[in-house]
Amino acid sequence: MSATGDVFPLDKDDVPTHWYNVLADLPFEVPAPQPPLARDTGAQEARALRPQLPLSLYRQGTGSGRYVEIPGPVRTEYQRWRPTPLYRATRLEKALDTPAHIYFKFEGTSPSGSHKINTALPQAYYYSRSGVAEMVTGTGAGQWGTALAMACHPYGMECTVFMVRCSYEQKPYRGTLMRLNGARVIKSPSTLTEVGRAALRENPDAPGSLGIANAEAIEYAATRPAARFSIGSGENHVLLHQTVLGEEALLQMRRAGEFPDVVIAAMGAGSNFAGITFPFYREARTHNPDLRFVAVEPEACPKMTRGTYALDYTDYSGVTPRMKMYTLGHKFAAYHIHAGGLRYHGAAPIVSAMYDNKLVEAAAYTQTRVFEAGRTFAKAEGIVPAPESAHAVAHAVEEALQARRQRRGRVILFSMSGHGLLDLGAYEQFLSGEMVDSEPSDEEIQASIRSLP
Amino acid sequence: MSATGDVFPLDKDDVPTHWYNVLADLPFEVPAPQPPLARDTGAQEARALRPQLPLSLYRQGTGSGRYVEIPGPVRTEYQRWRPTPLYRATRLEKALDTPAHIYFKFEGTSPSGSHKINTALPQAYYYSRSGVAEMVTGTGAGQWGTALAMACHPYGMECTVFMVRCSYEQKPYRGTLMRLNGARVIKSPSTLTEVGRAALRENPDAPGSLGIANAEAIEYAATRPAARFSIGSGENHVLLHQTVLGEEALLQMRRAGEFPDVVIAAMGAGSNFAGITFPFYREARTHNPDLRFVAVEPEACPKMTRGTYALDYTDYSGVTPRMKMYTLGHKFAAYHIHAGGLRYHGAAPIVSAMYDNKLVEAAAYTQTRVFEAGRTFAKAEGIVPAPESAHAVAHAVEEALQARRQRRGRVILFSMSGHGLLDLGAYEQFLSGEMVDSEPSDEEIQASIRSLP
Repeated sequence: MSATGDVFPLDKDDVPTHWYNVLADLPFEVPAPQPPLARDTGAQEARALRPQLPLSLYRQGTGSGRYVEIPGPVRTEYQRWRPTPLYRATRLEKALDTPAHIYFKFEGTSPSGSHKINTALPQAYYYSRSGVAEMVTGTGAGQWGTALAMACHPYGMECTVFMVRCSYEQKPYRGTLMRLNGARVIKSPSTLTEVGRAALRENPDAPGSLGIANAEAIEYAATRPAARFSIGSGENHVLLHQTVLGEEALLQMRRAGEFPDVVIAAMGAGSNFAGITFPFYREARTHNPDLRFVAVEPEACPKMTRGTYALDYTDYSGVTPRMKMYTLGHKFAAYHIHAGGLRYHGAAPIVSAMYDNKLVEAAAYTQTRVFEAGRTFAKAEGIVPAPESAHAVAHAVEEALQARRQRRGRVILFSMSGHGLLDLGAYEQFLSGEMVDSEPSDEEIQASIRSLP
Repeated sequence: MSATGDVFPLDKDDVPTHWYNVLADLPFEVPAPQPPLARDTGAQEARALRPQLPLSLYRQGTGSGRYVEIPGPVRTEYQRWRPTPLYRATRLEKALDTPAHIYFKFEGTSPSGSHKINTALPQAYYYSRSGVAEMVTGTGAGQWGTALAMACHPYGMECTVFMVRCSYEQKPYRGTLMRLNGARVIKSPSTLTEVGRAALRENPDAPGSLGIANAEAIEYAATRPAARFSIGSGENHVLLHQTVLGEEALLQMRRAGEFPDVVIAAMGAGSNFAGITFPFYREARTHNPDLRFVAVEPEACPKMTRGTYALDYTDYSGVTPRMKMYTLGHKFAAYHIHAGGLRYHGAAPIVSAMYDNKLVEAAAYTQTRVFEAGRTFAKAEGIVPAPESAHAVAHAVEEALQARRQRRGRVILFSMSGHGLLDLGAYEQFLSGEMVDSEPSDEEIQASIRSLP
């Protein structure tokens, strides 16, 4: 199929047949997870957690093969909405008066509205095959919870979602959407778990965090024999599943006849970032050795730009294996920014190792600057970015303006990981001038980092 | 491209090159519009209105040619998101335990979230070529206003939208979305026009109606030399533009290897209904002479099932030409149902004539039954229907259950004209059991119809 205007379409047959495992191509070892410390958790919980993962997912996260075949039924599900579109944002280029070419891959056309369903579906598939009847998870902004709820239904599994309270209250309709898809939605911290009750004792108005929501989900799942905890980002197998995003974008950039100079994505725990960048990392050696990758985070949760590279837990209560990662400490409570999906304290181990090895750059933006970029983009291109995705837009704009100052071309590709149709309340706040910025002080970050295991 | 599972994909090249003009194939004349009566309006306004339409749109609405070529730049815009997907709803079939095959065409993947942009784009194109600098319109639920705002931007035109107040308040984020796309949004009735001021004098809390919003838009546009009023449904040229929907669905049903026994769509003024049904009407003679078409309306606004076939105005204040249509009277004020797009008092002249000639059937459903169908569909298929589109779902479910009772196969196709992501507040009301039904009494309808011109 040929390119049409600024659209670079693919056929259903072009949906990838394999996920790409970047571990096969990294010039260093990614540090292995370490068991949790006995002082932080009972030995029993520590032993219990790892085997919860179905063997196929465990193998996917540790394998050395370059490609993992996508199971037929999962690929068929992908094909319900994939390939997703890749556009050249010519109207944005014009609005910015830049010589740069700006491309974006749009995952907002998925049924859940974001990239998250790319891993929710295979996870539901593998868990269902291993006899699990209920999936339990934590969600921040609700993108992941929505995706998992939708993925469970085809396999006849129940779905229980602990949703970070401040996000739940900012975006009540995310809860409605999950319930319409058959999920049970619980505000976190909740009174259903010891972790939740402790958090509420400490602060009855606790806004919650993804760390606490995940800790609650882990505790809750452990009490139900046919239930398993599942996670929407960070883990190696999750990053692997998201590479469908970058593999398609590679083909589409080929149709566009260009190879990027920089690939940009918002950085929560890293699955969206990994999804779009890893396949380009593989191809950069032959196509553009100077290709840069930029992970964009909120100044309110600056794990890459201001965190430390250390072993830390992925959940609040410290029952998960310790991972070597860029982190602000697993008890870090980010301010209530609207990009709830980026309020996570740590960066995925693989992305962290790449950052430590200078294969990846990072940048941080304030909330108002991010929404300003989101508005500019929406007006130019007619698509409202999710607040998370607007972080990538903010940096893409920055790169495009730099190209203008230098009077040189630049090919920019970024991931528009989701639409912002459930975030219009946040945009309304921005348009009416009521949005404020906040970021942690050095003292707050130091205090949080001191609690590392 | 071959079918994959329950998806029937098309190429970008399959986006129609022509709109289909059903007037060429109808076995009767559709009654021509009549000028407004002098007792209802000054002669000046009556003369002023018709020439506002660019000549190409006027010709499209009155021509006898079977096909109208889509201008290249409009087709290129269509190709940014078209073809839209057609799915077989196998999970819904399973949930209903029906032998029927249920297909749906999904227009919710468009940038504006509904089918409305299919006519907004060509209208903006033709108006811009005729030197217009500002488009003015009325919108009910906001789907049309959003589409027009998005369509104006590429042509550098301003966009002013009068939005029915009760919809504006039920769905504030629709206003945000229009503003993000550069439009000016005004609650109707407003104090900006004589029509609005009169409505507010009568009732300061007037919920508004699409008739009033359009009347305000007409009055406002008349005071600005470079502004024109544009309409999102009902007119012949609007119905023509929407046939891209049905032309694609025809191709996709061919890929699926089936031809429908019944085609179903929600009925506001009729553009979505016309869009999906007209191309099937053309093909029915050779493929299935028994093919039925069902227009589905809310019991709260039953213009087809309880209205009368008469000459009426399309706007509240009676300055537009009188059209022969099924109507509840142009002063009819429907209850505040969530399907704001279906609160319009009349049915498009072409659809009305087809209904009068028994080529089309009609059905009406209560609001709670419509939302119940929407929930069933969302849980099964992972897509939340707009409340308007859920009317089509409700009737599709009814047809599928009838097929089950008769133990006979039936091929059902319906238009899922838009997604319900901005209507989750209404679904929340339904889920929490707070939704109520209301419908006009015979006396109310008779009183309203007595005011016909």
